[in-house]
Amino acid sequence: MTSSDIVVIGAGLAGLTAARAIRAAGRSVTVLEARDRVAGRNLGHHLVNGVPVEMGGQWIGPTQTEVLKLITEFGLETFPTYDAGSAVTLYDGTPTTYSDETFGLSEEAAVEVGRLQGELEALAGTVSLSSPWLSPQAAELDRKTVDEWLRTKTDNAEALAFWAAVVPALFSAEPAEMSLLHFLFYIRSGGMIGSLVATTGGAQELRVVGGTHQISERLAETLGDAVRLSSPVRKISHGGDGVRVHFDGGEISAQRVIVAIPPTLAGRLTYEPALPAARDGLTQQIPMGSVIKVQVAYPTPFWREAGLSGFSFNLDDALSVTLDNSPPDASCGVVVGFFEGAHARYAARMSPEERRASAVAALVKLFGPDARQPIDYAEQNWMEEEYTRGCYGGRLGAGVWTQYGAALAEPVGRIHWAGAETSDVWNGYMDGAVRSGHRAAAEVLAHLEA
Amino acid sequence: MTSSDIVVIGAGLAGLTAARAIRAAGRSVTVLEARDRVAGRNLGHHLVNGVPVEMGGQWIGPTQTEVLKLITEFGLETFPTYDAGSAVTLYDGTPTTYSDETFGLSEEAAVEVGRLQGELEALAGTVSLSSPWLSPQAAELDRKTVDEWLRTKTDNAEALAFWAAVVPALFSAEPAEMSLLHFLFYIRSGGMIGSLVATTGGAQELRVVGGTHQISERLAETLGDAVRLSSPVRKISHGGDGVRVHFDGGEISAQRVIVAIPPTLAGRLTYEPALPAARDGLTQQIPMGSVIKVQVAYPTPFWREAGLSGFSFNLDDALSVTLDNSPPDASCGVVVGFFEGAHARYAARMSPEERRASAVAALVKLFGPDARQPIDYAEQNWMEEEYTRGCYGGRLGAGVWTQYGAALAEPVGRIHWAGAETSDVWNGYMDGAVRSGHRAAAEVLAHLEA
Repeated sequence: MTSSDIVVIGAGLAGLTAARAIRAAGRSVTVLEARDRVAGRNLGHHLVNGVPVEMGGQWIGPTQTEVLKLITEFGLETFPTYDAGSAVTLYDGTPTTYSDETFGLSEEAAVEVGRLQGELEALAGTVSLSSPWLSPQAAELDRKTVDEWLRTKTDNAEALAFWAAVVPALFSAEPAEMSLLHFLFYIRSGGMIGSLVATTGGAQELRVVGGTHQISERLAETLGDAVRLSSPVRKISHGGDGVRVHFDGGEISAQRVIVAIPPTLAGRLTYEPALPAARDGLTQQIPMGSVIKVQVAYPTPFWREAGLSGFSFNLDDALSVTLDNSPPDASCGVVVGFFEGAHARYAARMSPEERRASAVAALVKLFGPDARQPIDYAEQNWMEEEYTRGCYGGRLGAGVWTQYGAALAEPVGRIHWAGAETSDVWNGYMDGAVRSGHRAAAEVLAHLEA
Repeated sequence: MTSSDIVVIGAGLAGLTAARAIRAAGRSVTVLEARDRVAGRNLGHHLVNGVPVEMGGQWIGPTQTEVLKLITEFGLETFPTYDAGSAVTLYDGTPTTYSDETFGLSEEAAVEVGRLQGELEALAGTVSLSSPWLSPQAAELDRKTVDEWLRTKTDNAEALAFWAAVVPALFSAEPAEMSLLHFLFYIRSGGMIGSLVATTGGAQELRVVGGTHQISERLAETLGDAVRLSSPVRKISHGGDGVRVHFDGGEISAQRVIVAIPPTLAGRLTYEPALPAARDGLTQQIPMGSVIKVQVAYPTPFWREAGLSGFSFNLDDALSVTLDNSPPDASCGVVVGFFEGAHARYAARMSPEERRASAVAALVKLFGPDARQPIDYAEQNWMEEEYTRGCYGGRLGAGVWTQYGAALAEPVGRIHWAGAETSDVWNGYMDGAVRSGHRAAAEVLAHLEA
């Protein structure tokens, strides 16, 4: 049996960031990764023409300073997401292009959406990021689903349809599947709704040349053979004098362990002794979102010539959000689209051919007949991934923050928790993952014996 | 490596019932149980004076015909739960005794409670027991929490306080933690609210002399050494030609496997190949209830002399429900009480001494100063049990039935699912567990090769 000062479970951005900080402090660390690759929810892919696209998390926003620091440090380059021209909203069979703040909705619906957004953001302003369960109205906000809140606030069908697309676009989950308190915490964590949905100036502003998975790859390079791939962890034995981490192929002892995988997966490990009920109960109820991401490639970004940005909200079809995902040199056109929430579960029951046809049909409605003949189509169903089990991240249903929230990041003895779900800033995003890695590293370093 | 026709995981009522039916059909079966005892959520205990009490499920109702058949077959005896005299409801500092249908509430609150009960039961009548997600109003009912529904229906604080005690009494969970559709499914499954809350004529009518765990023990006796204790299962390998079940201490091959443990625990096993996303997603979000059950013993059932039945709803304190749990010969007095839902999580943070004092203080308010000096106190925190992780059972939050319900009992290849959570009749009860065992046995027997 080998040993390190610290073992980190999970070689995504959170785990690798933590490991590197531990190494930088002069301590030994081993990272155990279940997959045969690093980067977790970041995943690179090459289209048939060699153009790189990302099948997982891909965008970086201007206030995501921690992940931007890593990009700069590793000499990776960013480029702006294409955002010129008009967006399209498809509702009730009618595509509407717009380049203002109306989201292509009717005036009445746009006013309603704006009003509700204002109310939501005012409420979000009351939510504590570090301890949402201690927010002044926590109990009241946590007993409602987002869906119920929306429906008591408006009966404008178009506005409701818009929110029914926006909420899954942010969470890969339906408004009914989420606590209002969680929604408010999350939007505040990322700088409010405008920041989350915007391309320029918001969470989709920048892309990384070659793909975001390179950030994890560079982090892993700095760690060398401290990163062990294809080593799924099964059990953590822990006690007063240290931990032992049992994985397929061996065991490692350490002073402490950082578990840097989503809470639902962390709940599936065996702990000896078993975890306290508060922590265990939490992991029973942070389901991952449901999403199938598709990349549809064309010879050119033809929509640009029609004055379209490639951005769409589709309130009618299962492929509910698209953006222009063409390479920086526009050597071909790529649309990235998402089946999200209930749409993802519905699309998952289709054959691959049906799903592709469904995606292409939606693009034809949005961008015209040129969308009919893609040169390539790639998709990633994150729900089927054994070592992620859904993207973008874990969400908290009604009642969970107030009853279990305190256990989300609180260490259990020598076991510490990291991952995008544990961050109070940019929760659920790459930046949040990096922040959580720094936080967990600081926790363990403060406790390490000489 | 040994082999059986069928492997059953979990030696609770569901697993043992299934195993026995398989054996009766002339097939070989092995039951793997993680604990060093059978009976799962049934657990016997003896008070300091030797009187047996149950720390888990204990009551049987008259329509719970499947579990009653087992009791009769094994020659176990039942006796009626003590139910003479008046019940007590404590609200806002005032105990009110009653022996009618008012639950001890003010007239106005009683009318409101009755009206809401009627509305809930009318709605429950529209819910399909076999496929709740196909009920006519499924989407609408599944997007609401029970709490939101109640609050939009009444603003009578006393009626709301009553429901806030009744709902956890049935589910060990808060009204905010549960989908309205799940609540309606569950009450219909057990014959509506009156049937669920009643002692005589309802789910608490009968007790088993010596304890309900004996049912599982007798079932296990019929299976002999086919039941392997202390054998926690870690992995199920499955494919076209059979399954292999890996447990601490060995491996067994079989044609099929029945997983007869709660869904959240089933989700923690490793499956090779990994489970389909629909099933996996389900297990990410069926959290178990939160309950600490206490037994408080006195020299005599002194409350009976005061004309009290021992039944109470306590709307003020954490110990929210009690019943008379004295032995049939009344050789001593026993009150059984429950910390449920948020109260259980709150009580779990107390020291054992504080918790006992809290329980006894509540009993003094309900039954007078004679309650001050118990001769024994026993408690069981089901949340801390590694191989149950909460009682009474798993519940479905808002949106889960409609999105994932179809995967609750549907086999995945050669893997079948049993347990009280999978039953459409008396879901969550011992009777439902037995029914699920019969159903799962029938499934596998229909597929067995010669």
